[in-house]
Amino acid sequence: MTEEERNGGCGVLTVGSLALDNVETPLGKVEDALGGAAVYSAVAASFFAPAMMVCVAGEDFPERHFSFLKERQIDISGIQIVPGKSFRWWGSYDYDLNQARTLRTELNVFNDFHPVIPESYKDAPYVFLANIDPDLQLEVLAQLRAPKLVVCDTMNFWIEKKRDRVVEVLRKSDVAFMNDAEAREFCGTSSVVKAAELIRSYGPDVAVIKKGEHGALMFTDHTHFAAPAYPLAEVKDPTGAGDSFAGGFIGYLAHTDELTERNLRKAVVYGSALASFNVEDFSLERLRRLTHREISDRYEEFKRISFFEEVEIFDSGQIYIRRG
Amino acid sequence: MTEEERNGGCGVLTVGSLALDNVETPLGKVEDALGGAAVYSAVAASFFAPAMMVCVAGEDFPERHFSFLKERQIDISGIQIVPGKSFRWWGSYDYDLNQARTLRTELNVFNDFHPVIPESYKDAPYVFLANIDPDLQLEVLAQLRAPKLVVCDTMNFWIEKKRDRVVEVLRKSDVAFMNDAEAREFCGTSSVVKAAELIRSYGPDVAVIKKGEHGALMFTDHTHFAAPAYPLAEVKDPTGAGDSFAGGFIGYLAHTDELTERNLRKAVVYGSALASFNVEDFSLERLRRLTHREISDRYEEFKRISFFEEVEIFDSGQIYIRRG
Repeated sequence: MTEEERNGGCGVLTVGSLALDNVETPLGKVEDALGGAAVYSAVAASFFAPAMMVCVAGEDFPERHFSFLKERQIDISGIQIVPGKSFRWWGSYDYDLNQARTLRTELNVFNDFHPVIPESYKDAPYVFLANIDPDLQLEVLAQLRAPKLVVCDTMNFWIEKKRDRVVEVLRKSDVAFMNDAEAREFCGTSSVVKAAELIRSYGPDVAVIKKGEHGALMFTDHTHFAAPAYPLAEVKDPTGAGDSFAGGFIGYLAHTDELTERNLRKAVVYGSALASFNVEDFSLERLRRLTHREISDRYEEFKRISFFEEVEIFDSGQIYIRRG
Repeated sequence: MTEEERNGGCGVLTVGSLALDNVETPLGKVEDALGGAAVYSAVAASFFAPAMMVCVAGEDFPERHFSFLKERQIDISGIQIVPGKSFRWWGSYDYDLNQARTLRTELNVFNDFHPVIPESYKDAPYVFLANIDPDLQLEVLAQLRAPKLVVCDTMNFWIEKKRDRVVEVLRKSDVAFMNDAEAREFCGTSSVVKAAELIRSYGPDVAVIKKGEHGALMFTDHTHFAAPAYPLAEVKDPTGAGDSFAGGFIGYLAHTDELTERNLRKAVVYGSALASFNVEDFSLERLRRLTHREISDRYEEFKRISFFEEVEIFDSGQIYIRRG
């Protein structure tokens, strides 16, 4: 799509972490690299729709990272810059690249962070609550006027420490993202099918279970959808895969502004496409040089990867999620 | 399909183990149950095409198990019945059901087994070499006149003990089945994409990587295909999943006798469907009461599970594998 088309879509607000990442994988390492869930998701979303970010940075946060976000035409006026050091994460991945090992975390300015939604963001129709303290996610929702679609993510840490608050976030969300291990833990079952059912029973119409190299599953009232993963021969750095997935997903929905079952499925595939690009290089490097042409080519590949026979009747195009 | 249609297809020969299984899972257990790779694959194939089996049983093998195979109209004249006790396997599965734990194996009559292909089987067009000693798989191939399609399976044990012979089997096969862990081990890589490439470089035109609850991948010259798994809320007993998959796959190919990319993909989905039924109950219990109607309904469900957008151009219907 052209820049013009992109900017025709609804806005996407992402709230979460902004980080300086130090990552080592079997294929290399980076230091003080741009990272954080809000960043990965906003950058991925920005390929489809106008993106806005709310997060916190320390005074040490490198100007070059802000410049990159501005070049992507992301509205960063919601980034609070406060005295102190930025949030930093040190992580590494083993040979199989499936599980990040956190070596060290410095919360720094994240310790006292409370999201403040700028007035100009308060009508944002599409909202992604990336993985942060569920109390902060609830603070965000309390400041928004009438979001059309709320997508939330979380992680095992909050599931263990603040389960009730995670449930409260789910109650107020339309789409819940979890990875399969988190969903199993949250729901106390080895079956992701049962887990997705339980997650949806708390409120979200849609549960998306991320399975890394095995793709993703989306559960709705109607049915369930299995999106393949893109068959990469080599993954350089899995950091941000889940957030670029979510960003691509919500960005595509904001761009099309159509909440049908079929369009939600396309959004899952666009999300998978963005995630598959993201892991081809460290930090945001691959998304930095990614083109719209590459995205549509990969989307076409996803179609060919999962095709085996025509479906005659699918859905009526009925709007699936309608809030308020 | 009707019985008549089924019997119109080409014959499928399966060679492998026939066993008395003692299996315990979190949902129950069975003793002296019908099992073995040749059995699961032949029964699955028999839903689509006339099936023949070559394997060995001891004199203690219960008549009721033979009766079941005969009821399914499987040609069991290739089962050698020899003095001694039948092959027995004791296994259990943990809560997550992903990995069988072998508690005990008694090879018994399997110790001295050498497959003898009856004269009436020697022109079998479709052949499945289930997981057995690769030397025995090669003995089978040496006795066949001109198979149209040879599908082979193996396991980590043979990959470790007789790698060269496994390679020799691959050289003579058209389609290689492995699960993802075996493929990674066999190829010394964490990437299933690279593993499939290496497997195909030994000879097979097609590599099928089984991923259990994550579905299956098929790699060909043309492209790669990702088949979803069926979203079961409950798995009672995973034993035989891989073999019923392979049996459904080769059975559908034999029935249709069309080796195009598109038809190979359909075969993977029929295989997945058979496997998804098989794990719903212990031993062969679910396949015993399975109907053709249930199979086609589930196939339709697989279509809906993986559909997100029409593919305009797929393939030309060109015959993909042509031997001899």
